[in-house]
Amino acid sequence: MSSKIFPTAQDAENAFYEALERCDLEGMMAVWAEDDDIVCVHPAGTRLTGQDQVRASWAQLFAGGAHARVQVTHLESVSGVMFAVHSVHENFRLEGARAGDPAPATIVATNVYLRTAGGWRMIVHHASPAPGALPPPTSEDSAPKILH
Amino acid sequence: MSSKIFPTAQDAENAFYEALERCDLEGMMAVWAEDDDIVCVHPAGTRLTGQDQVRASWAQLFAGGAHARVQVTHLESVSGVMFAVHSVHENFRLEGARAGDPAPATIVATNVYLRTAGGWRMIVHHASPAPGALPPPTSEDSAPKILH
Repeated sequence: MSSKIFPTAQDAENAFYEALERCDLEGMMAVWAEDDDIVCVHPAGTRLTGQDQVRASWAQLFAGGAHARVQVTHLESVSGVMFAVHSVHENFRLEGARAGDPAPATIVATNVYLRTAGGWRMIVHHASPAPGALPPPTSEDSAPKILH
Repeated sequence: MSSKIFPTAQDAENAFYEALERCDLEGMMAVWAEDDDIVCVHPAGTRLTGQDQVRASWAQLFAGGAHARVQVTHLESVSGVMFAVHSVHENFRLEGARAGDPAPATIVATNVYLRTAGGWRMIVHHASPAPGALPPPTSEDSAPKILH
């Protein structure tokens, strides 16, 4: 059980990517709704449902993965009183990468959030490789473009 | 402009897959919200946004593609008064396929619908290959399992 409260969907999204960068399993799971109907699709992966499958997948990724920086760009969002849908590009770069290294991998992700009794929580994360996607901005400003 | 009214998100989803099977561009676009913020990700594709990009992609797919049967299975859904999120497996089989042919390709798709002034419409379709996904049921009954 998590006691973290995210006042907005964007707060939950920020915590999601911070946990991803830090390989922080408890921080990651604090973002997800405590619901058996949560859905997670990792890039090129099958669909995982429910707390147990989703937690196990992140535990496996965090145990084996190198720490990476994730720049989130090109946000499109549609939201209402009780839900928010964010579409983003995730631009991964391994820590220690330098200018001239291969371009970071770009992933397109659909993130869906619900307003629950315990604040905003993620219910869907669907990620897939996005070949030929626009590169991230070259400036240091990684603030997403918010259209809504 | 479309005059079709879908009374439920499931009605919109049914129309989406019927249009996909029939390669019916107008039927397909009647399902989508008339909004510049709609998002469509085809399997292994980049993100497309807005009516123009989404229409063009379906037009290209329908012009070049063979007709296929799509069996939609393993529905998980979360919905509220104004929105619905469906996660499904799309099991594609080319028309004319016979027993003993290779197993159909399975795609995992996240479909998001909004209740608009003109009924329920799709705002997000995010599809990606799902290697190793559960095969579709072997019976003729393709009714999805509805958990909510």
